[in-house]
Amino acid sequence: MRKVSIIGAHEIRWGVLKEKPMLDMISEAANGAIMDAGIDREAIQTIFLGNAFGEILTGQATLGSATANILGMPRIPGIRFECACSAGAIALREALMNIAHGVYDYILVVGVEKMNTKETPEILSAIATSFNFEEQKAGIVAPAVFALYANAHMDLFGTTKEQLAMVAEKNYYNGSLNPKVHYQKEVSMEEILNAPMIAEPLGRHDCSLVTDGAAALVLGPADSAKLYNSQPIDILASAVAGDYYQVSNRDSYVSFISTRNAARDAYNTAGLEPKDISCAETHDCFTITEVINIEDLGFFPKGEGGKAVESGETRLTGSIPVNASGGLKAKGHAIGATGVGQVVEAVNQLRGNAGKRQIKDAELVLTHMLGGSPSISTVHIFARGY
Amino acid sequence: MRKVSIIGAHEIRWGVLKEKPMLDMISEAANGAIMDAGIDREAIQTIFLGNAFGEILTGQATLGSATANILGMPRIPGIRFECACSAGAIALREALMNIAHGVYDYILVVGVEKMNTKETPEILSAIATSFNFEEQKAGIVAPAVFALYANAHMDLFGTTKEQLAMVAEKNYYNGSLNPKVHYQKEVSMEEILNAPMIAEPLGRHDCSLVTDGAAALVLGPADSAKLYNSQPIDILASAVAGDYYQVSNRDSYVSFISTRNAARDAYNTAGLEPKDISCAETHDCFTITEVINIEDLGFFPKGEGGKAVESGETRLTGSIPVNASGGLKAKGHAIGATGVGQVVEAVNQLRGNAGKRQIKDAELVLTHMLGGSPSISTVHIFARGY
Repeated sequence: MRKVSIIGAHEIRWGVLKEKPMLDMISEAANGAIMDAGIDREAIQTIFLGNAFGEILTGQATLGSATANILGMPRIPGIRFECACSAGAIALREALMNIAHGVYDYILVVGVEKMNTKETPEILSAIATSFNFEEQKAGIVAPAVFALYANAHMDLFGTTKEQLAMVAEKNYYNGSLNPKVHYQKEVSMEEILNAPMIAEPLGRHDCSLVTDGAAALVLGPADSAKLYNSQPIDILASAVAGDYYQVSNRDSYVSFISTRNAARDAYNTAGLEPKDISCAETHDCFTITEVINIEDLGFFPKGEGGKAVESGETRLTGSIPVNASGGLKAKGHAIGATGVGQVVEAVNQLRGNAGKRQIKDAELVLTHMLGGSPSISTVHIFARGY
Repeated sequence: MRKVSIIGAHEIRWGVLKEKPMLDMISEAANGAIMDAGIDREAIQTIFLGNAFGEILTGQATLGSATANILGMPRIPGIRFECACSAGAIALREALMNIAHGVYDYILVVGVEKMNTKETPEILSAIATSFNFEEQKAGIVAPAVFALYANAHMDLFGTTKEQLAMVAEKNYYNGSLNPKVHYQKEVSMEEILNAPMIAEPLGRHDCSLVTDGAAALVLGPADSAKLYNSQPIDILASAVAGDYYQVSNRDSYVSFISTRNAARDAYNTAGLEPKDISCAETHDCFTITEVINIEDLGFFPKGEGGKAVESGETRLTGSIPVNASGGLKAKGHAIGATGVGQVVEAVNQLRGNAGKRQIKDAELVLTHMLGGSPSISTVHIFARGY
C-alpha cells in the first residue's frame, strides 16, 4: 500500500447559483484543481464524483461521464458515488484506496450539488429521500432528527440554546473571513437566538444553508507528487463506519456511533490521538451536530461539547479550531460537494493559504462527514507532504 | 493483489413488480446471496450497491444504508454507485478492487432497480437523465441513439432487420427456459418483424423491457472461498473504459470504443483471447446493440455480427452463446441491477445450474455492460474456483 497525496485542490464560490449550470460549476472546480496540480489532463485515469440529488434536482445523472465530457477527457470513465451528504467524502475515500493499491495513479475527485433549482418543498422532498422510506413519510427528516438529538443532549448534559447559538455565531464569523462561502457576514448572538423556530430547539440560524457548490481534488501517489505540485498534501487516514439507518432503532441520541467508530479507525491508522489534531472541519448540518461531533471525534469528553464551545476552545484561536471555513453553516451545505469542500479547506490550512482564517501552526487537519439519517460517517486526516 | 471469488449469488424473479417494495426486492436477493455463501452476515464488512434511479422513481436514496438496515447489519456502511446502466457492474468492480487489495475481506454487492413505479412518461424522463443534458432535451435518448447506430451498421455492413429480429427471437427463446425472467415465452420472427415501430429501424421487440429486478453477490478472497461455498467462482478480470458522453462527438456509429477498450484490458488481464470464452452475457438494450457488442468483444470481425447471429453462432448451441439468460430483452433491463444479474447467470452457467439453458462445457464466462449514452463499458471474466 503506497501513500497518497492531494496534488491539486480547488473550489468555486458557494452560494445560490441559479444562473450557473451544474456542469459549469463542475468545470470551474475541476479545471482549477487540475491547474493547481500542474498535471496534463491526459494523465488522469478516472473520475470519482460525489453527488446526491443531481437526477432529481437537475435532470442529469451519469455525472461521471458528463464530467469527463466537459473536461475534454472523453475516454476517461467516471463513476458517481451517492451516500447522501457523505457522497463526496466517499468518492475521496474510494479514490484513495484505488491509488494506494495501484489500481490507478491519478484520479480526479469531484463533489458537486446544485440544490437551488426548484421551489423549497421540492428541494426538501429531495433531501428527504436520504432518510428511511417509512420514517421520511412520518416526518423523520433532517430538522426533526437533529432536534431530537438536541433535546436529548440538553436534557442529559445541560447543553443550552446559547451554546448552540455560539456554534452558529462562530461559524458565521469564520465564514465572514472566507471569500468562497455562501453567507459571508457575521450574525449576532441576539439575531441567532431570536430567529424563527424550525424544530424546537433549533431556530433558523441553527440550520445549515441550502447551497449550490462544487469542489475538486487531484489525487496521486505521494512518491511522485512533487513532480506536479511543490505543496502536496498527504492523506494519513481514511475511515468509514455505519449506524442504524432507522433513527428509531438507535440506543443513543446524544452521540453518533458511526463517527466514534470512524474516528477510532482513522486515529489508529494514522497513529494519532485527538489531541494531535490542529483543526477540524466537521459536519455542522445543525449547531447541535457540531457539539456532538466534537465529542464523538474525541476533542472533548461526552457531554462537554457545549461548554467547550462556550469557552472558545473551537474558535480560530482556541485549542481545536472547528470549521474555520465557516462550515455547513456559513460556507453552506452543498450536499455531495461538502465532503470534498472540507478537504479543499484542509489543503488551504496546511499550505498556509487560508488568509484571515488561517490556523496558526496547522500541521494535522481532520475532516468529518455524516450522511443519511445520519447512518454513515467518514473521517479523513491530512498533513503536509512537503 | 489477491484473487477474489464470488462465494454467494442470488437474484429474484424479474418483472413488473408493482406490489413489491424496492427494499423487499433487495432483501430477497441479498439474503439469498448470503445464504448461498453460507457466511455469517456479521462477517460482511460493507455493501456496494448499484442503482440508477432510486431517488427519482422510488423516493429512496442512500440505498447503501437502507440495505444494511433491512438486512440486520446496521453498523455496516453501504455505498451506492450510479453510472446509469453500468451501476451494478461498477459496484462489482469496486468491490473486487477493495478485496483484491485487502481493504476489505467480504463485501455484499447488490444491484437493484424498481422502474415500474410511475406512468410511462415519468419513467422515460428518469431514463433520459442518463443522457447528456443538452442532447436529452433534443431527443437524443436511448431509442434514438441506438436507431442511429442501427442505421449506420445497416448502411455500412448490410446488416438486415431480419438479423436484428433474430437477436430478439433468440433471446426470447433463451428467456423461455429461464424461470427468473420478466418475459418467459417465445416470440415468433413474424411477430417481432411486425411489431409497432419505436425508432426506425427498431420496433418494439428490438427494445429491452422496463423491468424491476434485484440481484446480489457475496465476494471474498479466493484463498478462503471454499470455507464458505464448495462452488466459488473466481473473477479473472475486470475492466472499465469510457467514451464521449455527447453522442454527436463520436467518430463511429458502428462500434462502441469503450467496449473495445474494456474488452482488450480484460482479455489482457486474464491472459485470454475472445475465442477462449465459453459464453457471454452482453448488454442487449436493443437488438442492434448485441450485434455491435459481439463484434466489439472480439467474437466476430467488425461488420459480421449480423451474419453471425443469422448463422446461429450465438444461440445456446452455437460457437459463442450470447445472453443465455434471455438478456435485457427477455430477462428485462432493471437498469442498476442488470450488471449484477448478468453475473448471477455467469455463476449459474459455471456451476452447471442453468437448467434448460445450460451451456455445454461452460468454463469461461464474460459479462459486458454499457452505461450512459453509452459512455462507459465494463467487462468481467469468470471461471470456476473449484
